[in-house]
Amino acid sequence: MYFDFGALTVLPHLLKKYNISRPLVITDKGLVKLGIIARLPIETPVVFDHVETNPTESMALEAFDVYSNSNCDGLVAVGGGSPIDLAKCVGILVHHKPPLEQYAIVSGGISRITGNIPPMISIPTTAGSGSEIGRAALITIEGRKLGFLSDHLLPLAAICDPELTLDLPRQLTAATGMDALSHCVETYCSPRYNPVADAIALDGLERGFKNIARVTNDGTNGDARAEMMMCSLEGGLAFQKGLGAVHSLSHPLGGLTEKQLHHGTLNAIFLPHVLRYNFDYCKAKIQTMATTLGLTDASTVPERFVRLNQELGLPVRLKELGLTKDDLEPLAKKAKEDHCTATNPRPLEINDCRKLYLEAW
Amino acid sequence: MYFDFGALTVLPHLLKKYNISRPLVITDKGLVKLGIIARLPIETPVVFDHVETNPTESMALEAFDVYSNSNCDGLVAVGGGSPIDLAKCVGILVHHKPPLEQYAIVSGGISRITGNIPPMISIPTTAGSGSEIGRAALITIEGRKLGFLSDHLLPLAAICDPELTLDLPRQLTAATGMDALSHCVETYCSPRYNPVADAIALDGLERGFKNIARVTNDGTNGDARAEMMMCSLEGGLAFQKGLGAVHSLSHPLGGLTEKQLHHGTLNAIFLPHVLRYNFDYCKAKIQTMATTLGLTDASTVPERFVRLNQELGLPVRLKELGLTKDDLEPLAKKAKEDHCTATNPRPLEINDCRKLYLEAW
Repeated sequence: MYFDFGALTVLPHLLKKYNISRPLVITDKGLVKLGIIARLPIETPVVFDHVETNPTESMALEAFDVYSNSNCDGLVAVGGGSPIDLAKCVGILVHHKPPLEQYAIVSGGISRITGNIPPMISIPTTAGSGSEIGRAALITIEGRKLGFLSDHLLPLAAICDPELTLDLPRQLTAATGMDALSHCVETYCSPRYNPVADAIALDGLERGFKNIARVTNDGTNGDARAEMMMCSLEGGLAFQKGLGAVHSLSHPLGGLTEKQLHHGTLNAIFLPHVLRYNFDYCKAKIQTMATTLGLTDASTVPERFVRLNQELGLPVRLKELGLTKDDLEPLAKKAKEDHCTATNPRPLEINDCRKLYLEAW
Repeated sequence: MYFDFGALTVLPHLLKKYNISRPLVITDKGLVKLGIIARLPIETPVVFDHVETNPTESMALEAFDVYSNSNCDGLVAVGGGSPIDLAKCVGILVHHKPPLEQYAIVSGGISRITGNIPPMISIPTTAGSGSEIGRAALITIEGRKLGFLSDHLLPLAAICDPELTLDLPRQLTAATGMDALSHCVETYCSPRYNPVADAIALDGLERGFKNIARVTNDGTNGDARAEMMMCSLEGGLAFQKGLGAVHSLSHPLGGLTEKQLHHGTLNAIFLPHVLRYNFDYCKAKIQTMATTLGLTDASTVPERFVRLNQELGLPVRLKELGLTKDDLEPLAKKAKEDHCTATNPRPLEINDCRKLYLEAW
């Protein structure tokens, strides 16, 4: 992890270190427009910029075609969680037999992902997903947002340069920031034994909570940008412990490809509802989080997150995203089956998911 | 990291996973006597048990001979920091040209250590050194305790089974525990920017401080044993951020081979003196540590560690170890040149080291 203002300058050194002479840069059109790709210290890079939010298998196949046709020998993912996750799946496609779906967690694919993956470097331009230092990727295949997980998907290096986040628009700053915060909260509440992850998650929560409003209100605040980037990094380091119902509920909505719903925004909406749902199952932990947030009473934590969303100008109800109750009905089963359900502190059945969707609506 | 009571049963699986069919078990005679080696789930293991505290190059060469003559193909280190550090250096000797000294940090050897090292599994039986999950090893060569550092020295897996620490004698429990605590304190105070390491170190400090007296007074307390093992693990994870003057001062004394001074005991003695020396250079951090230790006033932290040593029955002065002022005089220069000096919060000159030695005497 190279974490600093100006860390981007380390890229040529890393390309050399990992023997990448012709990287495929995977990114989105927004970042090209912002001039971020032009700032990469790579001469005439091969660029795939068709990544959209909640990336799909067909985007991965398209990027893989560019990779093959351009004789690339490595991957540089630049952007938020979507380009980085997509790059991980392109990495699988290079030397693994199709179809991609067989490598998904729910297909028992973890052990099918071998180390025969081209070298990859991640360069986050949002402070949110934590994918830059994570072993997971999420790709939508036939309407299902599927998780992929392997040590081999961990980028060889992450360049975390807060300067690259200075131009991030207000709305995306808030929404991706809430993604990072939700990773810290869900990891910390997850019942598995992992004090190391817990310590990292609590530290990330504190940094994120202190800075998300500051950075949303003034995107040029470098110190707050760096703190949010560290929150994102810490969320990503910690969440290998396991996430929970916030993510279980968000993923099926992210899989509604045509709606293009933002993952961080969904997490922000679900977080207070899930904290209330889980309350009695992780009360001591919510009390510790309350102290971290400067609150005395654990029971006020869910409401504090509602207020935070309002302060940030984020929606607090699913209906504000144009969703109908009918949209939600088929998703409860998918939420229950999501790979994050197993590590939620309170058991989660289809009916619970349905209720939580309606509460959040 | 496999962390649990009974985790030792995972060893056959790991030997298979890493293609080790004939491991060399590196340990010390004390653990053989305690029956720990007999409990390893390995049939008729090849055992090298000549490791002593502050292991030397000649022990490493001796172990390497056994490795070669027995056609071993991997290493299993069982014990405290000494056998684990020694195993790391045996790992270097297998495929790297002698002499060993050229691979030491002070010889510029970090980049000379390649990945051509046999697979290694560590099994700590103390809760102290953190070497089980660390990239460093310390070996005495011609009276100098030299550090070796490389990602390639990180064991492939660590089996942290608190059950293996239940028989650790009172004195070693206290002294190794203080080693772990000193890692947490020194890492946290080190001025480098690394919030992840800081969060882990503070969590380790809290666990260690709460449990070291409990476990010293009742070694059969499984819960306290597990907490100390986690403290040791967290110290080891965190200290790649860099240690400080406590370790700079301890290492030269550890290099006095004939004296066999225990590293953790030395750290325990130096800790309060170094905290006083560094006080104005990391006051805010010492204040945070004070809160973690249940104290209100940062200035009472050094004295609290003196009292802790007394509660644990550890020496608080170097003269209690039979050292004379003359023993200390030649060590100040070595302490200044130690690889940990660079990350002490306050600059450390030869004269400062001399004063600190005399204060601790």
